[in-house]
Amino acid sequence: MEKISVRAAREAEAIGRQICLQGWIRTRRDSKGGFSFLELNDGSSLGNKKVIADADLPNYEAEIKHLTAGCSVTVRGEVRESGGKGQATEVHAGEVILHGTADAETYPLQKKRHSFEKLREWAHLRPRTNALGAVARVRNCICRSIHNFFQEEGFLYVHTPIITASDCEGAGEMFRVSTLDPANPPKKDGQIDYSQDFFHRPAYLTVSGQLEAETYACALGKVYTFGPTFRAENSNTSRHLSEFWMIEPEAAFFDLNDNMRLAERFLKRVFGDVLEDCQEDMRFFMDRVDENAIDRLREILESDFLHVSYTEAIDHLERSGRKFDFPIAWGKDLQAEHERYLTEEKFRAPIIVYDYPKTIKPFYMKLNDDDATVRAMDVLVPGVGEIIGGSQR
Amino acid sequence: MEKISVRAAREAEAIGRQICLQGWIRTRRDSKGGFSFLELNDGSSLGNKKVIADADLPNYEAEIKHLTAGCSVTVRGEVRESGGKGQATEVHAGEVILHGTADAETYPLQKKRHSFEKLREWAHLRPRTNALGAVARVRNCICRSIHNFFQEEGFLYVHTPIITASDCEGAGEMFRVSTLDPANPPKKDGQIDYSQDFFHRPAYLTVSGQLEAETYACALGKVYTFGPTFRAENSNTSRHLSEFWMIEPEAAFFDLNDNMRLAERFLKRVFGDVLEDCQEDMRFFMDRVDENAIDRLREILESDFLHVSYTEAIDHLERSGRKFDFPIAWGKDLQAEHERYLTEEKFRAPIIVYDYPKTIKPFYMKLNDDDATVRAMDVLVPGVGEIIGGSQR
Repeated sequence: MEKISVRAAREAEAIGRQICLQGWIRTRRDSKGGFSFLELNDGSSLGNKKVIADADLPNYEAEIKHLTAGCSVTVRGEVRESGGKGQATEVHAGEVILHGTADAETYPLQKKRHSFEKLREWAHLRPRTNALGAVARVRNCICRSIHNFFQEEGFLYVHTPIITASDCEGAGEMFRVSTLDPANPPKKDGQIDYSQDFFHRPAYLTVSGQLEAETYACALGKVYTFGPTFRAENSNTSRHLSEFWMIEPEAAFFDLNDNMRLAERFLKRVFGDVLEDCQEDMRFFMDRVDENAIDRLREILESDFLHVSYTEAIDHLERSGRKFDFPIAWGKDLQAEHERYLTEEKFRAPIIVYDYPKTIKPFYMKLNDDDATVRAMDVLVPGVGEIIGGSQR
Repeated sequence: MEKISVRAAREAEAIGRQICLQGWIRTRRDSKGGFSFLELNDGSSLGNKKVIADADLPNYEAEIKHLTAGCSVTVRGEVRESGGKGQATEVHAGEVILHGTADAETYPLQKKRHSFEKLREWAHLRPRTNALGAVARVRNCICRSIHNFFQEEGFLYVHTPIITASDCEGAGEMFRVSTLDPANPPKKDGQIDYSQDFFHRPAYLTVSGQLEAETYACALGKVYTFGPTFRAENSNTSRHLSEFWMIEPEAAFFDLNDNMRLAERFLKRVFGDVLEDCQEDMRFFMDRVDENAIDRLREILESDFLHVSYTEAIDHLERSGRKFDFPIAWGKDLQAEHERYLTEEKFRAPIIVYDYPKTIKPFYMKLNDDDATVRAMDVLVPGVGEIIGGSQR
């Protein structure tokens, strides 16, 4: 008897098969007709599988009638066409094996919505909620899509160092890594003696793999990183995390137009895969979290990304007649409110702003002939703002 | 004119096409016949592409005749059938554009072998060597194969925390992460006041994502991690790095037999993909680094992994008549010399040793009915030793 996923058991093609399912009970409902309906979830999909357990099963009275949310079970049975609405199939159990019980008095994930903040108290259980399960499946799809995209484009995946002795963007925002005794560090001439630390010098968590990836790009042509990155910034905004996974493609012989085209293909591939592979999870987000969750991605997929120079962008903002909190002036960086106006009101589409003033960008970007702007770009999308930054060097 | 990779330009299917190549010169040889042979590499393959640059090209005397190893160029031309040996194709250049020169007096990667230790001095250039390029391509292939394998098996990729407050396996071997001033940390009652540190408590770099992955497996069924892991152990052996990427699959409802079958399928998939996709790089390793590089993988692919209980393994070692540096006794862990005897002499195949004494394994492994052994396994392969460890919990 083949073990299959709930996701597979919900498909009409499964009808007629003898199968084995393993997962966790979401709900149980007892029918007066002498059987129980079980809703089983195994994480393979948001939706559950309806299981019909007949009263003549040997453990019906002793176990099945006491199943509650969170119990772990094995179900063996036949997939049949569903008599009810909403599901194509149902499983008629020949056997229900109970592995672990969950006390209904204390198991916290009952049929009730909890806030994300509240769910932090049950970090070990919250992946069983619809919302965090959906996040995990969509995140998995995004990661798969990222790798597939770059591999198909001929980029090599490289792992750049996490612990680093280089201080890329100012030590103030980096985490320090050490094995010295913090209460009693070795000192020399009144200073910490880092020659006795693990790496014999001060070490930090990386803020970017760019420098190392560039050396690989200058040998292997096209490479990308996809790994954890760190910022020791105590910022409670939705835009900053102290630990996050970042993708950094680096390609030799690419000019800024190549970068812009790559960025557009990349976003369309990832968003397209999510809409295709995670339909049920995305509908859940649309219904419960953000009614634009699907439309926003679809609109990006159907748009041609407009290329707008920084100078043009400033011009549009100045002529908008709008009052912004942050003043607009050539030479100042664009703020979130400016990005939103451009993508959500002026162009109503994703745009790529390019050729920024050299004064607000790092030294290593390629200077244009005007001696005032550099070959930098930011991809801005409606509802999010900056989603990719890049440059020609 | 389409830009293609050197790898693609070397295939016979490219013959007749007008193409653009971009990469770095490896060698230049001038023919008396009034043209030069250039060997061009772009990192897409170990092998170079032979380019024929005719003396009537406008920059022949000024630039092409001065090209040296490391120069970066764009070549536009036609792919033709090769007259020479060893290569199926050659490119007849219509244009050679020089982007960057490399001074032959100071550019260190000339036609000469350097030791890996010496190459550390040119960390920014060493990916251009045959050996490090091959390592990068094989590593990329392994990573792609790892993700493809788990995705096809229905595992979800999860990112477990890198910075952690849990002290999984003894703080002695962990790196400490902090933003406190190491020279002058805040103190309270004579102790470091971690409430003022970034996370308001002592924090470390993770040694394992197992605990977090288990919570996801108990909600989503099958998950895997693939991320950096850290050990603050100053061990100069080939088996320990302070920073390395580790794969941790966790699956609910798997017993030890499921784990063993998964481990065998996994290794065979990865090694099979490497032999298939990286033939040229693997031949290079066989010729230059380890003459068994290919055979070792092929033998693993063609083997059925033998399952040998720990008790049987001890029995084989005791009856071997061999003198080992480390004594053999039931209850002691297997050492590298024992593993080598079992895989390279006794069985001459990969083996999976299972059911280890509970006294040498962590508390969380499932105890067998004998009350003496636990459902742990180690996969041992000839020439390497332990390559995977796992358990039923």
